[in-house]
Amino acid sequence: MLLKDTIIALATPSGAGAIAVIRISGSDAIAFVNTYFKSVHGKSLTKQKSHTILLGHIVEGDKTYDQVLVSIFKNPHSYTGEDVVEISCHGSPYIQGQIIQLFLRNGCRMADAGEFTLRAFLNGKLDLSQAEAVADLIASDNEASHQVAIQQMRGGFSNEIKALRDELLNFASLIELELDFAEEDVEFADRNQFKDLLLRIQNVLRRLIDSFAVGNVIKNGIPVAIVGEPNVGKSTLLNALLNEERAIVSEIAGTTRDTIEDEIAIGGIGFRFIDTAGIRETEDIVEGIGIRKTFEKIEQAQLIMYLIDAKMISASGSMFQIEIEKLKNKHPQKPIIVLVNKIDMIEAEAKNSLTSSLGKIDGIAVQMLSAKTGEGVDELKSRLLQFVNTGALRNDETIVTNSRHYDALIKALEAIEKVNFAMNDGVSGDLLSLDIREALNHFGEITGEITSDDLLGNIFANFCIGK
Amino acid sequence: MLLKDTIIALATPSGAGAIAVIRISGSDAIAFVNTYFKSVHGKSLTKQKSHTILLGHIVEGDKTYDQVLVSIFKNPHSYTGEDVVEISCHGSPYIQGQIIQLFLRNGCRMADAGEFTLRAFLNGKLDLSQAEAVADLIASDNEASHQVAIQQMRGGFSNEIKALRDELLNFASLIELELDFAEEDVEFADRNQFKDLLLRIQNVLRRLIDSFAVGNVIKNGIPVAIVGEPNVGKSTLLNALLNEERAIVSEIAGTTRDTIEDEIAIGGIGFRFIDTAGIRETEDIVEGIGIRKTFEKIEQAQLIMYLIDAKMISASGSMFQIEIEKLKNKHPQKPIIVLVNKIDMIEAEAKNSLTSSLGKIDGIAVQMLSAKTGEGVDELKSRLLQFVNTGALRNDETIVTNSRHYDALIKALEAIEKVNFAMNDGVSGDLLSLDIREALNHFGEITGEITSDDLLGNIFANFCIGK
Repeated sequence: MLLKDTIIALATPSGAGAIAVIRISGSDAIAFVNTYFKSVHGKSLTKQKSHTILLGHIVEGDKTYDQVLVSIFKNPHSYTGEDVVEISCHGSPYIQGQIIQLFLRNGCRMADAGEFTLRAFLNGKLDLSQAEAVADLIASDNEASHQVAIQQMRGGFSNEIKALRDELLNFASLIELELDFAEEDVEFADRNQFKDLLLRIQNVLRRLIDSFAVGNVIKNGIPVAIVGEPNVGKSTLLNALLNEERAIVSEIAGTTRDTIEDEIAIGGIGFRFIDTAGIRETEDIVEGIGIRKTFEKIEQAQLIMYLIDAKMISASGSMFQIEIEKLKNKHPQKPIIVLVNKIDMIEAEAKNSLTSSLGKIDGIAVQMLSAKTGEGVDELKSRLLQFVNTGALRNDETIVTNSRHYDALIKALEAIEKVNFAMNDGVSGDLLSLDIREALNHFGEITGEITSDDLLGNIFANFCIGK
Repeated sequence: MLLKDTIIALATPSGAGAIAVIRISGSDAIAFVNTYFKSVHGKSLTKQKSHTILLGHIVEGDKTYDQVLVSIFKNPHSYTGEDVVEISCHGSPYIQGQIIQLFLRNGCRMADAGEFTLRAFLNGKLDLSQAEAVADLIASDNEASHQVAIQQMRGGFSNEIKALRDELLNFASLIELELDFAEEDVEFADRNQFKDLLLRIQNVLRRLIDSFAVGNVIKNGIPVAIVGEPNVGKSTLLNALLNEERAIVSEIAGTTRDTIEDEIAIGGIGFRFIDTAGIRETEDIVEGIGIRKTFEKIEQAQLIMYLIDAKMISASGSMFQIEIEKLKNKHPQKPIIVLVNKIDMIEAEAKNSLTSSLGKIDGIAVQMLSAKTGEGVDELKSRLLQFVNTGALRNDETIVTNSRHYDALIKALEAIEKVNFAMNDGVSGDLLSLDIREALNHFGEITGEITSDDLLGNIFANFCIGK
């Protein structure tokens, strides 16, 4: 896995722009680029100091490819820990392609997805959890996911795991030392201190495991299903929340058939709104499929917004309460917000009487709005924000967002619980030591002290090429 | 126009990638970025040498925006000639936006389109024709347009114009000096040498003006119209040339209604193929509009490819010759290639007899191919390449691709012809001097010695933001 050949990739997004950056890494990177580089001041890249930039041209024989700036990073002071050259060329896809092909023709290899970061990990520039945070950082599209990724990339999570691991390792060594002196029946490891440590580790692990629920939401957005009978204005509300014409709206009941999802950040938190087909009996086959999908989407949602048409309330006041009861019974865990829509369509008087009569339905928050005019939409947004417990974010606590880390933490906790149990049962040191080793392994999986080629392959395959 | 404020823009294409580069230019650029930069080694950007790079974080109070590399370019050794900072951050659109907004909030201004290059021009880093070549370079998508832009950016065209201008300026000075001694009737400027110079200038100008036809083709691609009766396989041929399913093909005559255009580089030259509606009498209104458009497209094309169905030749052999005659009479200047398509559908024997009987029709090249199987398509591509006179490219001669330059050259030639005429007529020195000044002005417009705010506004508005 420790490849030393010279790899190349476009590091900036593809497409046209003012400039593009091509990244080259490997022990021969500098000499390689120097062969095809002509500095305007006659300087050689091989004689440049690290972290300096030269202006010149990429040339091959008589042919000039482009005027470029070449940045030099010498090992180990580079992203990958190897010699790295970054060529900043003009941002034409044609030129980018020509320069990359020039180097590919002459012995560079196209970098695999995430290979620069993989090399950084293998060369000890980043641990595995920090490397994964790089991908999260690039994918982050709101304040919360960005801050969690930055914190993880800067080593917040790794440090917490490493501290636990070091303490545990210390004890493991002492217990293993005892095994060498088994016949003498000594105790190097203070059992009470050890129990304290196990308790502390369990508490930290439980807190981290619990944070995954929040972390998952931060990374993927909170799924919010918009449901209700046909033509109550669900798609109009989606458009109002997204501030764009995302869903087709019409006066015709049953316009929406496919579920439409889109994400928007409200107050730095990502919300994924899911517009669904109106729930009704229908003969239309496509609409019928849509309605079945609606029920699936409600399953996935963390929050349900149930829309009612203000005009219909007096007519079928009790009817929608039955629907809400049904929803509640089906999804007892899911918070529901009842939204009385189309208040622009009713008289002020009717509005007032609605306000006083509705209040809360069976302890469910009710809010009046007009998705069409936008009245009440900002209020709804604040309500959604309140719904999210952002306490964890504000306190700068470590939050787990990665399901691989979550799995490793769960397994580590199981192992620690086994150790604890064994301790209380007075299990012999050699068995104890096995369980501790297992917990240590799971910690090591997170930061990458313990890896396999398969694991690394899986992780870095999800990166973009050039990173 | 000589603004000194600090401008910022994303320099790399928008979208997600491994990294993105944000460019900041202005006299305060370095101090500005330094306020929000924390080097990992505690270094200050303001104390860095030009052309060096520091690793650190963009921070605002407690909040970390991203880990970044910051490159410093000190005036005048930068792209704009001002102090320039390039921030290389993680390639998430969210992070790019956050960092740019941070600087906008604190006094930077969003750069206008092309403003970095405009400043480079105003600070004497590039002349105007070189600045325009930057935009051409970014837009270049084939070998030929790329080489012309590179040559122009490196000053090839400017140098040629400047050399002529300097010589002319020299004579203008001498003639104007004569005016100061008008009463003494002296001749400082040797009239014979001057006539020689005028002749040389005219020759160079004519060559440059003539090169525009080639230059225009190089920049925009050679428009080639694919015409013929319905269902002879025009769209299939387009797809075969482009190597993709660009046009919808079907067995139904009249499938193509909109004209479909797409460009591909063959041997480094851009060709723009135009698939047209089949020409026939039709009742279908949309198809009728399409057929009218076909005739317009033939007008714009530099080359016409007329397709015939091999199966139909024996049946209506003379018919298509009439159509070709019509085309030739309508467009006497336009070269036509006759393509006998669908040769995969006829027997080998029929093919052989076709080959011998067709040869050339009235001096028009005929080629047999199958757009469906690809047989003969490569041969067609070589034929298209032969059609282009690439001699100019190979000789590394200066080629004019910009219509603004073309206009200025035409006007300069007119002025020079007026000077020549006046000389032969023995016109007085003061009138002569006026015409020479006019020619000098037109030269100056090309390189930017003579400019106006309007002119600069027009030129740089076509740039992308960040360049």
